[in-house]
Amino acid sequence: MNNKKIDITGINKKIGVTGIGNAIVDVIANVDDDFLEMHSMDKGTMRLIEEHDVLKLKSGINAVRVISGGSAANTIAGLSVLGNKTAFIGKIKDDDFGNAFEQELKKLGVFFNTAKAGDADAPSTASCIVLTTPDAQRTMCTCLGIAGSIVPEDIDENIIAESKMLYIEGYLWDKDSAKSAIRKAIDVAKESSTVIAMSLSDKFCVDRHRDEFFGIIKEDAGLVFANEVEIMSLIETESFEEAVEHCKKLPCIFAVTRGEKGSCIIFKGEIIYVNAVSTGVIDSTGAGDMYAAGFINGWLLGKDLHACGRMGSVLAAEIISHYGARPEKSLLELLAQEGL
Amino acid sequence: MNNKKIDITGINKKIGVTGIGNAIVDVIANVDDDFLEMHSMDKGTMRLIEEHDVLKLKSGINAVRVISGGSAANTIAGLSVLGNKTAFIGKIKDDDFGNAFEQELKKLGVFFNTAKAGDADAPSTASCIVLTTPDAQRTMCTCLGIAGSIVPEDIDENIIAESKMLYIEGYLWDKDSAKSAIRKAIDVAKESSTVIAMSLSDKFCVDRHRDEFFGIIKEDAGLVFANEVEIMSLIETESFEEAVEHCKKLPCIFAVTRGEKGSCIIFKGEIIYVNAVSTGVIDSTGAGDMYAAGFINGWLLGKDLHACGRMGSVLAAEIISHYGARPEKSLLELLAQEGL
Repeated sequence: MNNKKIDITGINKKIGVTGIGNAIVDVIANVDDDFLEMHSMDKGTMRLIEEHDVLKLKSGINAVRVISGGSAANTIAGLSVLGNKTAFIGKIKDDDFGNAFEQELKKLGVFFNTAKAGDADAPSTASCIVLTTPDAQRTMCTCLGIAGSIVPEDIDENIIAESKMLYIEGYLWDKDSAKSAIRKAIDVAKESSTVIAMSLSDKFCVDRHRDEFFGIIKEDAGLVFANEVEIMSLIETESFEEAVEHCKKLPCIFAVTRGEKGSCIIFKGEIIYVNAVSTGVIDSTGAGDMYAAGFINGWLLGKDLHACGRMGSVLAAEIISHYGARPEKSLLELLAQEGL
Repeated sequence: MNNKKIDITGINKKIGVTGIGNAIVDVIANVDDDFLEMHSMDKGTMRLIEEHDVLKLKSGINAVRVISGGSAANTIAGLSVLGNKTAFIGKIKDDDFGNAFEQELKKLGVFFNTAKAGDADAPSTASCIVLTTPDAQRTMCTCLGIAGSIVPEDIDENIIAESKMLYIEGYLWDKDSAKSAIRKAIDVAKESSTVIAMSLSDKFCVDRHRDEFFGIIKEDAGLVFANEVEIMSLIETESFEEAVEHCKKLPCIFAVTRGEKGSCIIFKGEIIYVNAVSTGVIDSTGAGDMYAAGFINGWLLGKDLHACGRMGSVLAAEIISHYGARPEKSLLELLAQEGL
């Protein structure tokens, strides 16, 4: 029972959402299933690789496109395109990839002022080799580089306090050094009545950090994004239905994407099912990130959960119809076409 | 310091705002200043009268119009016209005025199911003689009748729990019997994370219930509506600036209307000034009620406080350009014209 009165002064915060995540440039390439098998890659997941692996892998592929990515950065980019005031906190180096990443975010109107690593010896800006198979699935090899070196000093307290929502990607937990930065961000958010949202990111990522993720879900987050596989990994079950039943009892909203089956939103013991928007699938990279952008856009506009989910579906459909995890069509027009 | 995580499941509540107030039918008449003086009336305020006074007063005026009113009911009507899902709780009798009141609310799409008093001996449905002077000020004589007999059984818990906001008018405190009903509504709202908004209603009303209003402001309400005179009455000062300084320290948002000077929004030590929308003034009845409707509409749409205030100004300008406290023009069009 909640007997506290509700403070609605958060309505006047100047920033809609601040995202924290790994600042990554995506290198997209088409490969066949054999290529994944040859490199012992598990289709649809993300694995971490070292800088020397990047070079080895690059020699075996033809890059279709090089484009800014990073899970939370993609979500923030989508929210910015939709007209929301956004900010991003993430670590880049003062190198080609880093500068391209920064310029793309700023071109979209995202506030970004994390200090760049200028030291020549510092690891490079993170890159992610995105391998797209003919079935439009994407398998990712990420070299975290400098991105994992985010420290508490990189967390701008004023920006988080001035945001209606703080959005954190689960991938951040992969570097121990980043954890104190995340904790600082969460503490500032809670002191400032900033809603906390997190994405579970990846099933192996969930596996690596299950206890910590449960802690965040129980104590901090109001909103959690995941796909079917990630939510089953969280609950450690092979049954999606069992995972949903478990989530019903957890104290936050779960927005769970299910590919062409759409999504389901779990909260306070209830489930809302949302259809997918059908489209030709070219590359599923960024589908979850853009679903989150659409969903959060709905939340910022005071829409109900079903409408939030539909906004997520519309944006996800756009992003999977072309290569890359950043939108190409007018998202506002797409939402208007769906009456949203 | 707030270290609780924020629950955003309220986004999925089915009702935008439920209002509780006196269900009143307005009888509008034009009089000159002498008439007010003759009847020792204080211009711009509301006084309570008995049923026999209504008859006496009616014999001395020519009613221009008879139309549903009631402060919170007006606000709810405005919110409904703007497309929000709304509900109203208020007491009427099964008589001509009562049935007209009910039909008008339902025609606007407001959910209304408070049990009507059917007993022939029961007091009549409340009426308010609204005396408009040539300066467009309105002076009101209200016969509360059955409206003041609202009891805890009239408070539909499900409706309040399913509302994003509970809106209560200060006038309700004028009948002791209604206080337990208000308390029940507030308790249900707090248990259900429903934001509580109240209007101070009238300077004499504030005078009569200052301690109780302060209690609500400190413990329950997230949003308080008042005009200059009411806020000065609350703080017991002759200086508006002093009242504002005091309100800065109180733990809720104050939206204070100032006639042609616009409004100011006070929160967390800050003040936001909002201009009035200029218009010809015919009858200021309902200006504050419609300001509240516009403001709350902005809140429901996730707008910042300045935009909320502007929405309030636009609606207030519409209502004072004609007789009666219910809107006549398309409010959505008016907001669109102002880019809102």
